[in-house]
Amino acid sequence: MLRIHVDFTLPEDALALLRERTQGHQLLFAERPAASVLGAATTDPAFALADIAFGQPDPSAVAVAPALKWIQLSTSGYTRYDSAEFRALVARRNIPVCNAAQVYAEACAVHAASFILAQARNLPRALRSREPHASPAWKDIRTAGTTLQGSTILIVGFGTIGRRLAEMLRPFGVKVLAYRRNARGDEGVPVVTDAQLAHVLAHDVDHVVNILPDSPSSRGFFNASRFGAMKPGAIFHNIGRGTTVDQDALAHALRSGRLAAAWLDVTEPEPLPDGHPLLTAPNCHITPHIAGGHRGESLTLVRHFLANLERFTRGETLVDRVM
Amino acid sequence: MLRIHVDFTLPEDALALLRERTQGHQLLFAERPAASVLGAATTDPAFALADIAFGQPDPSAVAVAPALKWIQLSTSGYTRYDSAEFRALVARRNIPVCNAAQVYAEACAVHAASFILAQARNLPRALRSREPHASPAWKDIRTAGTTLQGSTILIVGFGTIGRRLAEMLRPFGVKVLAYRRNARGDEGVPVVTDAQLAHVLAHDVDHVVNILPDSPSSRGFFNASRFGAMKPGAIFHNIGRGTTVDQDALAHALRSGRLAAAWLDVTEPEPLPDGHPLLTAPNCHITPHIAGGHRGESLTLVRHFLANLERFTRGETLVDRVM
Repeated sequence: MLRIHVDFTLPEDALALLRERTQGHQLLFAERPAASVLGAATTDPAFALADIAFGQPDPSAVAVAPALKWIQLSTSGYTRYDSAEFRALVARRNIPVCNAAQVYAEACAVHAASFILAQARNLPRALRSREPHASPAWKDIRTAGTTLQGSTILIVGFGTIGRRLAEMLRPFGVKVLAYRRNARGDEGVPVVTDAQLAHVLAHDVDHVVNILPDSPSSRGFFNASRFGAMKPGAIFHNIGRGTTVDQDALAHALRSGRLAAAWLDVTEPEPLPDGHPLLTAPNCHITPHIAGGHRGESLTLVRHFLANLERFTRGETLVDRVM
Repeated sequence: MLRIHVDFTLPEDALALLRERTQGHQLLFAERPAASVLGAATTDPAFALADIAFGQPDPSAVAVAPALKWIQLSTSGYTRYDSAEFRALVARRNIPVCNAAQVYAEACAVHAASFILAQARNLPRALRSREPHASPAWKDIRTAGTTLQGSTILIVGFGTIGRRLAEMLRPFGVKVLAYRRNARGDEGVPVVTDAQLAHVLAHDVDHVVNILPDSPSSRGFFNASRFGAMKPGAIFHNIGRGTTVDQDALAHALRSGRLAAAWLDVTEPEPLPDGHPLLTAPNCHITPHIAGGHRGESLTLVRHFLANLERFTRGETLVDRVM
């Protein structure tokens, strides 16, 4: 019998599935659960009894939960846990930490693909237009669209999402490149090195898709110098984290026309406050951090947990282990 | 030496290419060219001398152009020519008639894919939203998106465009079905018969992509009865012709909630007049007949003509021959 601490609210169907498939174990629900998987839960008294943490446990509470044997995060991002201190703690106590990357990867990849295609077909402008055929404005809209054939798309931060996105883009006749800090050789697309990045951005890349997670080394990765080096008319997409972008530099690159458009699912903060320069920058299209969301998302999350629980009880390798 | 009559305006780059690659032939330009490839040209005195018509010649002028040997239309649609009388005329005089389907097919397929993905990711609503995380409105938007995995997409009117669209959709884990009047067995996806159509619409299809051309048999194909038979929550896309849809029935299906959304690149007329019910129907997204448009479109059209001209002068089979 394992005590599983759950610190976020689940809809009825997902909760029913969780209860049904954890019979023989004990579910401990937080007294004040987080309302969203993106929010941090407050520390809960029952946490001290937990064998398994499912959600977003307070990193400092982990140290005083003596029975804890596995942490299954409910998110893809895990910045709050990504410190030398926390890594040392879970390593010392042999507590595997898993994120939920696979839960959100498919939707994230589809979201990025939807950005690329909406841009290619000029949807934001075309959907507002009722110009009559053969008018100059209509011709302008009609010939602003592209087919994507021959375009080059660079995926920065190439993991599970990037791999799926590359598969989705293949039939469109595009060239996909990857940039990742530690190339593994199994990317399936050409990997751009640090030394090549500036040259490739300046000469080849039509669409940049940023999927970088937040970390000390990724913060502000897309800065004035990188935007300034991009091919004029390039498009910038961000479905990673807002902190990886110097947003003033991005707004400037849009205003100057260096970049033709930006498509952002993430910003810093979220949502952007009134008057933020990105809200009025030309061709800046923002969705409110929903890339990983999908109908039945909570069910997907619970299924992901249950599959890992089965692996855990059998002593098998856990999926999406990050520490 | 062939006399090639051109009845529409070409931008400089496309005109230069046409001139350069038709040396040895004679180009006859219409005195009053059509401003758009979608508009019909007025009859031109020089047309009577033409060996080849490139554009949208007046069907009645063809009868009195004694030298005419080949008609290369500048559009994909050819309704104006699709009469028994005209077919008999060109058959009797052995004049092949080609449309320009391949010029627009790639862009059309990308456009349809952009509609499907924008709908899957709820872009029209998400791009207007700045809801804070964990608010009910945000959760609603986040969980309204889908991954497309397991969706069924029916392509109605399955030709060059449909085939490309099916290829583009394959990596998304969707099931693609085709409906066409005369199945050839080479569709590469399951073909729905007339007898199966109602059942498939009612039980299986999440997205209908209508690519039917305008013809007496396709007019009003999507009527109240077909919309009423669709699975509740289905999505209707149209990149074929507006005449194939009973638009009042479509507006009703959107208002009643039977259909979750419509994405239309074509309407009847174009643009829709002020006050038309589709302009205020919920979740009705309209682009102004630009699906086939793309940067360099005129160059693509000229290249398509030149490739066919080479085939014509060699006596080879013409591409996109429709009569």
